[in-house]
Amino acid sequence: MTQHTPPAYVVGIDFGTLSGRAVVVRVSDGAELGSAVHDYPHAVLTEALPDGTPLGHDWALQVPSDYVEVLREAVPAALRAAQVDPAQVIGVGTDFTACTMVPTLADGTPLNELERFAASPHAYVKLWKHHAAQPQADRINALAAKRAESWLPRYGGLISSEWEFAKALQVLEEDPEVYAATERWVEAADWIIWQLTGDYVRNACTAGYKGIRQDGAYPSRDFLSELNPDFADFVDTRLDQPIGQLGEAAGRLGARAAEWTGLPEGIAVAVGNVDAHVTSAAAQALEPGQMVAVMGTSTCHMINAGEVKVVPGMCGVVDGGIVEGLYGYEAGQSGVGDIFAHVVPPGHTHEQLTDLALGQKAGQHGLLVLDWHGGNRSVLVNAELSGLVVGETLATKPEDLYRAVIEATAFGTRVIVETFNQAGVPVNEFVAAGGLIKNPLVMQIYADVLKMPLSVIGSDQGPALGSAIHAAAAAGAYPDVRAAAAAMGRKREGVWRPDPAAGEIYDELFAEYVRLHDYFGRGENTVMRKLRAIQRKVATA
Amino acid sequence: MTQHTPPAYVVGIDFGTLSGRAVVVRVSDGAELGSAVHDYPHAVLTEALPDGTPLGHDWALQVPSDYVEVLREAVPAALRAAQVDPAQVIGVGTDFTACTMVPTLADGTPLNELERFAASPHAYVKLWKHHAAQPQADRINALAAKRAESWLPRYGGLISSEWEFAKALQVLEEDPEVYAATERWVEAADWIIWQLTGDYVRNACTAGYKGIRQDGAYPSRDFLSELNPDFADFVDTRLDQPIGQLGEAAGRLGARAAEWTGLPEGIAVAVGNVDAHVTSAAAQALEPGQMVAVMGTSTCHMINAGEVKVVPGMCGVVDGGIVEGLYGYEAGQSGVGDIFAHVVPPGHTHEQLTDLALGQKAGQHGLLVLDWHGGNRSVLVNAELSGLVVGETLATKPEDLYRAVIEATAFGTRVIVETFNQAGVPVNEFVAAGGLIKNPLVMQIYADVLKMPLSVIGSDQGPALGSAIHAAAAAGAYPDVRAAAAAMGRKREGVWRPDPAAGEIYDELFAEYVRLHDYFGRGENTVMRKLRAIQRKVATA
Repeated sequence: MTQHTPPAYVVGIDFGTLSGRAVVVRVSDGAELGSAVHDYPHAVLTEALPDGTPLGHDWALQVPSDYVEVLREAVPAALRAAQVDPAQVIGVGTDFTACTMVPTLADGTPLNELERFAASPHAYVKLWKHHAAQPQADRINALAAKRAESWLPRYGGLISSEWEFAKALQVLEEDPEVYAATERWVEAADWIIWQLTGDYVRNACTAGYKGIRQDGAYPSRDFLSELNPDFADFVDTRLDQPIGQLGEAAGRLGARAAEWTGLPEGIAVAVGNVDAHVTSAAAQALEPGQMVAVMGTSTCHMINAGEVKVVPGMCGVVDGGIVEGLYGYEAGQSGVGDIFAHVVPPGHTHEQLTDLALGQKAGQHGLLVLDWHGGNRSVLVNAELSGLVVGETLATKPEDLYRAVIEATAFGTRVIVETFNQAGVPVNEFVAAGGLIKNPLVMQIYADVLKMPLSVIGSDQGPALGSAIHAAAAAGAYPDVRAAAAAMGRKREGVWRPDPAAGEIYDELFAEYVRLHDYFGRGENTVMRKLRAIQRKVATA
Repeated sequence: MTQHTPPAYVVGIDFGTLSGRAVVVRVSDGAELGSAVHDYPHAVLTEALPDGTPLGHDWALQVPSDYVEVLREAVPAALRAAQVDPAQVIGVGTDFTACTMVPTLADGTPLNELERFAASPHAYVKLWKHHAAQPQADRINALAAKRAESWLPRYGGLISSEWEFAKALQVLEEDPEVYAATERWVEAADWIIWQLTGDYVRNACTAGYKGIRQDGAYPSRDFLSELNPDFADFVDTRLDQPIGQLGEAAGRLGARAAEWTGLPEGIAVAVGNVDAHVTSAAAQALEPGQMVAVMGTSTCHMINAGEVKVVPGMCGVVDGGIVEGLYGYEAGQSGVGDIFAHVVPPGHTHEQLTDLALGQKAGQHGLLVLDWHGGNRSVLVNAELSGLVVGETLATKPEDLYRAVIEATAFGTRVIVETFNQAGVPVNEFVAAGGLIKNPLVMQIYADVLKMPLSVIGSDQGPALGSAIHAAAAAGAYPDVRAAAAAMGRKREGVWRPDPAAGEIYDELFAEYVRLHDYFGRGENTVMRKLRAIQRKVATA
């Protein structure tokens, strides 16, 4: 490692769903010296555009200038808070929500900034949770399955409506004029780098996980043409772009961005990245066998391996998707913290229910839950699945259900861990990150259910720290992201120890969970799908 | 019918779980002229005796003198409220909770009134919901099944822990001294008649439904001896007693009771009866094919037929159990209104959720529930079953679940109705009674799910009116209960009409309900039983 004198700093910027956070980090040891958050002025547009133009059901848009505001406001504020001389900053790294897509001109100008498209919803940023492209996703999946496309198993057999192709196809089919004007279809993760450097470099992570780029290629012209003849040239004309590896420099900070941020022109800017994925570096969990779970409203699981295996129900496996030189695997649970919140009754709090549930033993409440309130991503890959609670009596209390849903998500995680193990991608360490690591009930239950010690990330700002680590690598302060993570990341190892007595009870309950999971999730009883179908029928009657 | 001049009146007294209600009723037309309620001073003893002697888990006792207070307080108050000259009252009828048992001396003195037993819990009344005799009930059922006792199928294959034999066996095995002193083991329904008349007449209803009296005989000495040698003579020494048919006079009002009540000595006192069963008369639903559902915290279903059929999962079939000359069938749902209450979150009310749910169409909320929060009596006869909710998402609202649990109990009722139909006891009319008839959401859902018009009892005081009808028959004002019911009962026919469109959706949902019902209820997946077993194991660890 290279030690700078005077001390060198990097800035990590985490672009979340509602705000961006900048953190100033010391290169030598990863110390977080100051941070600042800036809320997006337009937050998330779900009902209408700023001018009142109404949006459809399941839409979720953003305004790209809000991201630039984060550069202008949060970065200088973080520098002030850190009391660091900007001249000592040697690099910038970023992470973004994904898949969040910006339609732009060839120079990166977002289409919504053109006067003629100001009232066109499709000209705005489609946020990751824009779910209105489901019909397009369904067609992509059906056609890919029919044609047995080789890339489909790399995504657990399902391309999400959230991803690049479904969202682009929706634009084409619903607003051909905007589609025609879209010269580049850009991940926000890369668009922000473009703003910082003036160059468009496509990061390997989102290109792989969200852009169906596998073994250097995208879905074929033939495939796209069969989806929609006008979509045939989508990759060639709008999507393809040189790939940057994670932790490389995408370029140098441009004059305009230097003015926005107060940072020195010409410093290194790391290749764009994704919030969950940079967290692996912050948690010092980049080696094969280390699974990082970013646990919040939903959970993202990441693990690296030296080779490609087919893991049923994973979200994706991408060469260099988490760290260069390894295959990065991603899996996910679509509902976690949001289910916990859903079962907190009016007048109760998480803290209160946590305290009450901490007083219980495993198995005491008599409940078993399937944690599918938001569908199931891994390993069943079925958004039509829904929650199930069994065992309720008139004596069931709110803390019983609260504990049971936490246990359910732990069982769901155990299914994922066991699936990876069985697929030849062994999980040797489980490293928890995300907001839920602060809840001792959640952590202890996960340790007991997984029957593994839980390591925990040592930072409250995992993504921003991870971005800073990538900035340090991009700046050449370390030979690579691994070395930077070793010096700057923080992990507390094995802090939650499994209780063997609880583990025995959880083995019994997990066997019942798996039985229900398979019965309702693998086609034997399709009541969940039927209930949704009836709902839709009634809604349109 | 005999018309009296001046007008004649009867008094019906309904002994409930927490209070007794007296109603003064005109014999000619059943008009309810005045009523009064008196709370039992000791209510239900579940924690301790009045002197502080602690009670075990699942105990529920009462104090017999509380019932006498109802005679002394509520009857005179009802007479005053009705502004009726007591001299014009020609009869008294009663109904009681069941199975509620009083251990007495040969003269009817309750054992708890003896000084030496004042601190003995087993000397008190065991209320219907005393559930601490489950181990005894389990042994009765196992032995009866092993011996293939002919009476077992008459009870759907299960003798309840609430009933006469299980409760008596518990006394014998836990307090032999009290058992030895118990000269008569008396249904409270009959004990109150004994207090009114001075004579002990055992009513055909509880003798059959709760006392396992079938075809004129009780379980054999041989059977009882195999249960416990000291129990061999239980029927002969403590239980057997001449049977009175419902609607007959058990005797005449004695001097002491005349003084308590202010009623004329010597008027007719009807044979004891049960709250649910007298309601059939009040609802004018005594003919074969008419099913009465008394819908409250739980639901009791009653229907008459000319012959004995084996109906799977019924609670019992008794010759003259509801009305003389017909076989009375009883079935039950152990949780109904109490489940509705259980899903009302803090800060919400039944009224509010009812209003919101009334705005929904069938199938709109996407939920399906198994209504087994209190186990399942009919038709599965399994107390270890528990509730199940499937289809929940993060968008599920309290009114969705509220509507879904109501629908679930309606599906449960449809299972019972279809089971009776298939067993050769056809249900041609569904007559609703009980507290839930005031809820329009419940009534409409039941009509839609059952795909039958719903008739509704025309009185808010169904049991007391039913008792009054039995009093009128006992007094000879009518030739029998049927004739009295025709003149004095009240039913509004077909007031809730099924909506065919909703019925079609409910057919689809009911098919899914039945599939889950059979999967979890008939042994294919025993997760509910296992969850209870784990709970018990953890509790005792």
